[in-house]
Amino acid sequence: MAVDTNLAFRNYDRKVLYSCPAFEVVQCEWKKNSSSPMHNHGSSDCYVLVEEGLFEESVRSGLEISTSFRKSGQVIHTPPFSSHDLICKSDYARTVHVYVPPLSKDQLGNRFSSPDQSEKLNFFEPLSRPGISRDAFSSLLDEVRNQSVSVHSEYFMNQLFSGLLPESIAVSRIVASTKATLATREASPVFSLAENEVVFALSQALGWDPRKSNGLAVPGGSAANFMGLHCARQRVLPSARDEGNQGHRFRVFVSEESHYSWKKGCLALGFGLNAAIPIRADARGRLIPEQLQVELTKSRLRGEVPLLVGATAGTTVTGAFDPIREMHSVCRDQDVWLHVDAAWGGPAIFSNSAKHLMNGVELADSLSFDAHKLLGASLTSSIFITQHKHILLEANDVAATYLFHDNEDFGDRGRLSWQCGRPADAFAFWSIWKRYGSDGFGRFIDRQMDLQKSFVQLLKESGPRIKLLHEPEFLNVCVQVLPPEDQQDVASWSRHVRQSLLESNQAMINFSVNPQGVSFLRFILAHPHLEIVQLRKIVQWALEVQ
Amino acid sequence: MAVDTNLAFRNYDRKVLYSCPAFEVVQCEWKKNSSSPMHNHGSSDCYVLVEEGLFEESVRSGLEISTSFRKSGQVIHTPPFSSHDLICKSDYARTVHVYVPPLSKDQLGNRFSSPDQSEKLNFFEPLSRPGISRDAFSSLLDEVRNQSVSVHSEYFMNQLFSGLLPESIAVSRIVASTKATLATREASPVFSLAENEVVFALSQALGWDPRKSNGLAVPGGSAANFMGLHCARQRVLPSARDEGNQGHRFRVFVSEESHYSWKKGCLALGFGLNAAIPIRADARGRLIPEQLQVELTKSRLRGEVPLLVGATAGTTVTGAFDPIREMHSVCRDQDVWLHVDAAWGGPAIFSNSAKHLMNGVELADSLSFDAHKLLGASLTSSIFITQHKHILLEANDVAATYLFHDNEDFGDRGRLSWQCGRPADAFAFWSIWKRYGSDGFGRFIDRQMDLQKSFVQLLKESGPRIKLLHEPEFLNVCVQVLPPEDQQDVASWSRHVRQSLLESNQAMINFSVNPQGVSFLRFILAHPHLEIVQLRKIVQWALEVQ
Repeated sequence: MAVDTNLAFRNYDRKVLYSCPAFEVVQCEWKKNSSSPMHNHGSSDCYVLVEEGLFEESVRSGLEISTSFRKSGQVIHTPPFSSHDLICKSDYARTVHVYVPPLSKDQLGNRFSSPDQSEKLNFFEPLSRPGISRDAFSSLLDEVRNQSVSVHSEYFMNQLFSGLLPESIAVSRIVASTKATLATREASPVFSLAENEVVFALSQALGWDPRKSNGLAVPGGSAANFMGLHCARQRVLPSARDEGNQGHRFRVFVSEESHYSWKKGCLALGFGLNAAIPIRADARGRLIPEQLQVELTKSRLRGEVPLLVGATAGTTVTGAFDPIREMHSVCRDQDVWLHVDAAWGGPAIFSNSAKHLMNGVELADSLSFDAHKLLGASLTSSIFITQHKHILLEANDVAATYLFHDNEDFGDRGRLSWQCGRPADAFAFWSIWKRYGSDGFGRFIDRQMDLQKSFVQLLKESGPRIKLLHEPEFLNVCVQVLPPEDQQDVASWSRHVRQSLLESNQAMINFSVNPQGVSFLRFILAHPHLEIVQLRKIVQWALEVQ
Repeated sequence: MAVDTNLAFRNYDRKVLYSCPAFEVVQCEWKKNSSSPMHNHGSSDCYVLVEEGLFEESVRSGLEISTSFRKSGQVIHTPPFSSHDLICKSDYARTVHVYVPPLSKDQLGNRFSSPDQSEKLNFFEPLSRPGISRDAFSSLLDEVRNQSVSVHSEYFMNQLFSGLLPESIAVSRIVASTKATLATREASPVFSLAENEVVFALSQALGWDPRKSNGLAVPGGSAANFMGLHCARQRVLPSARDEGNQGHRFRVFVSEESHYSWKKGCLALGFGLNAAIPIRADARGRLIPEQLQVELTKSRLRGEVPLLVGATAGTTVTGAFDPIREMHSVCRDQDVWLHVDAAWGGPAIFSNSAKHLMNGVELADSLSFDAHKLLGASLTSSIFITQHKHILLEANDVAATYLFHDNEDFGDRGRLSWQCGRPADAFAFWSIWKRYGSDGFGRFIDRQMDLQKSFVQLLKESGPRIKLLHEPEFLNVCVQVLPPEDQQDVASWSRHVRQSLLESNQAMINFSVNPQGVSFLRFILAHPHLEIVQLRKIVQWALEVQ
């Protein structure tokens, strides 16, 4: 996937005006219908000024493929990790291209494994040594980027995100160069409004009444689950605000397939690990509501205090969606808080093909949503949201007069938070939502769901050594690879395949191990530019592993 | 401080080759000794290629003022929010300058108050509407930047940080465009090492044994204090890991001047607000150790469990440093965990003129450190660090097999954390430390301490309406402004002054109110380019407020 500069520019005269390690300025002259092929700019910013003439530009940037016309005086900016092509539509045209840094400096290849970087970067030189020059610092940052895992690659599916949205990169610069802290509205007028709007729009998208909902950005999906526990405690035991847990044996009911952050939350909030009661899941990884009923009843009989039931919308391994509506019936009968951990699967609400998976979410008390996973925002862009409008303030506000001045209107979002200084984490989500709209999100997810169907078909046609573990519900596809020869260890083979693909820098796919000790690959179809052709290659490579 | 392009370029021939909203390319021809004056590039990136000749460049970038020579073929990159000048040292020279975006688009002025931005940005248009084009998105981000508070200004001292380090902005792009998550070393090899190195070097700087220390980046100084409470709980009650607080009435002892995050921590961890016992401070805001002794004894007599004593190194309002050594004596006698909240004052350890304030820190059990305050890293860059090497793992590890693979070495820093997906928050600190070194930090703080002395002198010579509340210990200077006429309200006048300076976009200075209800201004001398001339102006403006 490296940029071939010979191929990338053809059918027109190209003159390099200036070239140096930091930038390149190129002038091109075009005739009618001369064109550049679709090319990816990697981590370079590309600016093209149309000095004269008319162009049609097709661009693949983030979640969108679009075509537009550009005439004299206009500038085409292709942000990092975007592809575009240009076709000259006038008899003659002239353009000036500025690349920062030059295209040839780009790293578009795949780097998934890099054992030696510690030596090379000299990380273990004590930081207490004298500083380094600006130039050396700049080179060091280049090296850091080059030594990092290639999350921009279609072959990266190790996390529940893949690919880079150029909007997120642009936003990160705005966030850094305004250094706004969300504690007070006065210090971050724009970003406070953006966070507020994200919460408003998300509550609408969930089918909640936005006027009765409240929420905020928190530092990760785990923190959103923590906040669910905290709000549920405030509701069950309002005196916890002054007196703490008071020896109540709070219990939290989550699927055995749920995220480990529930356990961490029980540690942090003073409930202890024994407070997390795992509920059995079915073969596809979905919590069994009858089991929930049984465990809740048993817990009450033991004199414990059921605090919260956590439904998972999109489990980490299999992408299973717990039956929210059925779980709500149990919670309603037993008067227990229902939280939905939709960190991974939440965006399904925008999609025609997947929104049924979120059925019943309109009934939840609270929810975790990560825009940095499927929707491509920067890490972290997590929202905690609840239908109990005042609970966040009741549970968290300890207004400090020096910071939260009473002459300001009620927009100081720090009152809702565990954080004081807090970056504009919701702004990337706001920006991406503004840019693509709910419809854009929906089209993107529908596309990925179509890809999942094609991939399942491909797997079924890939012969006896490829075993689909179960029909996927969402964008996780779990696949066992059997060894080429009978005498090899079946249980560990998929893990071996994973490690081999990783070390050869072909693909980075996470694995898991089922209760029987059998390892399998977990494909994540999150990259917006992922096509069946790449998936076919991975399957082929997996079968070739020795 | 707007850029005067007429003034900024003189004594040489300047030819604009290309100019458009996205970039500008300029060619200059120079004669011996022709020069550009020192000019600030605001949020533009400036790249200068020396095509021919020799230059001396002086640059004021971040914490450093430096001079170097640049010859043919070299590139000078002046990052955003940096100033530089050039002097031609050869008989003839030719340069090419690329500005992205053009200088004229910059906003170097002060914007502290912007009541109307909500309308202008159309924030309240529902996010669920259709998306917008790339061009519209780009304009929107420009608008967001322009509507934000000018933290880059020397006249911004509303938070415990001021000014922008170009290194932080460069790092933010690397962090966004690698999207590394710190959960596993495999997914973030470079950043995991960097976090590890920051913890190692910080423990050394504190006079701790790095081999016996451990720590990690947490989402803010508040979170670092939370983690102190959590680790102290694990030490006092190891069974809390499984069984939670079990009805123990834990108590936390912190100065009445301490940060409100201690209260939030007591809420979050299930202790309740009553668990936070405020200890009286002296007139300068320093905790009185004898009072600590008294309250600890009373607490034990009430059957409570003293969990943690929190010393503040640099209080939010007055910048007071609690007497760590004396507090440690009390803690040692009573076997209570001593945490130092050094979020603001911690960098004093690097400085000759201020390190005595941290005396006794070598004895602390744990500590909070914010590199995003005085040291200029991006929000947030907070470290929790402890001398109890294994306590973080004991208190937090609930290893999830699908994520933390056992075939990896023990570098998965997520085990120590409350977060799962976690950005490379420590990387900005690592970068700034690498760039400037401990010596650079020390020189910077010594410079600021000198400025504080000059400022105190200036205040004392500013007449009877300017009242220094007390001799400052650190970089907070608290000043009451008396009204011009006797009949005006003395108590609220400083607050009125603050609001007036804010609304006129002259300066953004926070205020506080003392126990007698008297308001005062809190100056924060954190901006690395702040000079006495700006402080003199602010005092003058404050006296002119009607």
